[in-house]
Order: sequence, then C-alpha cells, then structure tokens
Amino acid sequence: MVERGKFITIEGTEGVGKSTNLAFVRDVLASWGVDLLLTREPGGTPLAEEIRELLLSPREEPVSASAELLLVFAARAQHLERVIEPALARGDWVLCDRFTDATYAYQGGGRGLDRSLIESLEQQVQGELRPDLTIVLDIEPELGLARAAERGDLDRFEREDIAFFNRVRAAYGERAKRAPERYIIVDAGQPLDEVQRELRRQLEALK
Amino acid sequence: MVERGKFITIEGTEGVGKSTNLAFVRDVLASWGVDLLLTREPGGTPLAEEIRELLLSPREEPVSASAELLLVFAARAQHLERVIEPALARGDWVLCDRFTDATYAYQGGGRGLDRSLIESLEQQVQGELRPDLTIVLDIEPELGLARAAERGDLDRFEREDIAFFNRVRAAYGERAKRAPERYIIVDAGQPLDEVQRELRRQLEALK
Repeated sequence: MVERGKFITIEGTEGVGKSTNLAFVRDVLASWGVDLLLTREPGGTPLAEEIRELLLSPREEPVSASAELLLVFAARAQHLERVIEPALARGDWVLCDRFTDATYAYQGGGRGLDRSLIESLEQQVQGELRPDLTIVLDIEPELGLARAAERGDLDRFEREDIAFFNRVRAAYGERAKRAPERYIIVDAGQPLDEVQRELRRQLEALK
Repeated sequence: MVERGKFITIEGTEGVGKSTNLAFVRDVLASWGVDLLLTREPGGTPLAEEIRELLLSPREEPVSASAELLLVFAARAQHLERVIEPALARGDWVLCDRFTDATYAYQGGGRGLDRSLIESLEQQVQGELRPDLTIVLDIEPELGLARAAERGDLDRFEREDIAFFNRVRAAYGERAKRAPERYIIVDAGQPLDEVQRELRRQLEALK
C-alpha cells in the first residue's frame, strides 16, 4: 500500500509574500525528492477556477456572505474530489496556496459569519481531511496592502478596508493558537532570508 | 405594516411545459391585481445567473455532486437576500421557476445525495422560509425529454439518462406526498386547456 502524501497549506493576508515563499517551500520539498502537487484555492480545477473568478471579480452587486461562503466550499468540494484526494492517495504531497483556514479567516473573521456554519460545511465537504501542516505568513495588514496595491488591479477582497484585514489576521492567529501542533506562524515582516531560514527549519520536522 | 407576499414555485422535469404554464399562472395572478415578481432558479441576480451558467454548461470535467449542490445553494443564498426576501417583505408575490424542491429532486433523487445534507443547507440558507404553494408539473420523463430535445442544445442536466429523470420525478412525487397541503401535482400529459383549468382552480384557493 502506498503511504499517503502530506498535505501542506500556506496562508496569509494580501501582500504577505505568499507566492515567493510558496516557491521556496516547493523547492525545499523537491530537494528531498518528494512528488509534489502545487495548487491553490479557490481554484485548482477548471470549474473551481471559474468559481474563483466569480469570487474575486469586483462587481456592483453586493455579494451575500452566505453565497460567498458556499461558493468557496463548492470550489473546494470539486478541488478535493478531482485533485487533492487522488494526489494524496497515490502518495504525492500537496502544497496548496490557501485552504479552509482562509475560509475561517476571511468569511469567518472578515465577514463575521458564524464559525459553526463554517465548521458544518467543513465537515460536510472534507470529512476528516485536515492539512498536516499549515504555514501562516503573518504581517501588519497596512504593510501587506501597500505591497498588494503596487501589483496593480485589486480584486474584490483586496478592496476591503484595513479593519477587515485586521479581523482576518486575528482569525488566523486564533486558529493557530487553538491547534499549535498543526500551524507554523512566520513573521513575514522580517528580511526574506530570515523568513526562509525559519521555514526550512520548520519543514525539516515533516521529513 | 405591509402584508407579506405569497411565494409560489413551479417545478417539473425537462419538457414538462413549465414556461407555458408559468406564463399562464403569471397571467392569472396579474388578473387579480397582484404585484408579482417573476424569477427563476438557479439565477435571478447577475451573480446567481453566472452560477447558473457554471451549473448548466456541459463540460468535460466531471462535476462533484457536492460541488453542484453547494453551487445551487450559493445561487439561492444570493437570490434570497437580494431579490426574493425584499420582494416578499414589501408585499409583492414571488413566482419562481424552480426552487429547493428541485434540489431535493435533482441533487437528492437524481444524484443520490443524502437528504439530510440538503436539509442542513436548506436550514442554513433559508431559515424558516418555504414556498406557500408549489406546483409540480408531472410527466413521463420519456415524453418530456423528447420535447426538450426538439428545443435544440441540451444542457448538462438534460444530457442525463432516463433513469436519472425517473429518480427526479419520483423525488418530486415523494416531496408532494409528505406535505400535500403545500403541493399541487398537475398531470402535464393532459391537453393544455385541462392543465390550465386545473391550475386556475387550484390557484383560487390562494386568493
């Protein structure tokens, strides 16, 4: 029987350096000879990427927080069934740019939806599946948003105000505090080589 | 205080004559001087119509039944919050082409998803809201599908096989049997004037 792969997720607010550090984590894991699938949420399949578009496009119509939450989990159900579950089952590791912690942070913390609502959908869609490791890149939202703004067009989430991102950040922090064995919080305000030294050290524990 | 409007839904499998009879019901209600909002599911708002497109477009990627269910409820949450609830609250009647009974029929009966899963989402998204009256147009699926095929391009659901539509039809029948006070089942295989005589008679009860 093939040993099931590890499931690693990376989380953080806008402009935290997620792409750079995702690439770094990928390289570290590749250097160990791990078969790795790199993917993202919302997205990861053609249908789920179309749902991502619906979620991120700025639109005049105000989006109901419940509709947003259900779209996120619809994309996730598709992604899990078509991509993540088969990969883990065949022994590949999966490195995913955002996962359900982002739902607790953005739709729970940011939008103020009940945590019990999210828990119930998490149970329905994921069953017992949870990431083996979640890396939370943490930064002052002011700093991150300034970086995100330099990249150009802002998506529907990036247009939220600083209070929204403060709630998102606080929700990530709370999640990590409740299950410290599963989370690494990295101060992404440090120089990049410090961030990456810390990431490498923490990843070694999974080897 | 404004009296809340009535919420009427029309259901049925493909090719059952839903559009024709929807227009007939609209005309009957309009003749009573009712302020009526005509809408449909999935859809009814720009975002919800985009979700409808995702659901109905034929695609190579197999769609997870859970993802389909969550997309349906995401569209519904948006439709309820932006359109249906405000209309009912201001005293308008709402006539909706398909609603949650279709979810029990297609995703429950057709796809075989657990009823308890659908009930839990119904509760989360709708709270206590249920239609005041649901008209189920009933027809032999073979007959309906032959009619639907004449209309041209088939959507992702219309491409299902006859066994799927037999399960959908049976699920509608079961729903109606469990709460006969809320449902009218009309034999849509009868001549149209018979169907409409029966619809008019049943609608009178709402007056």
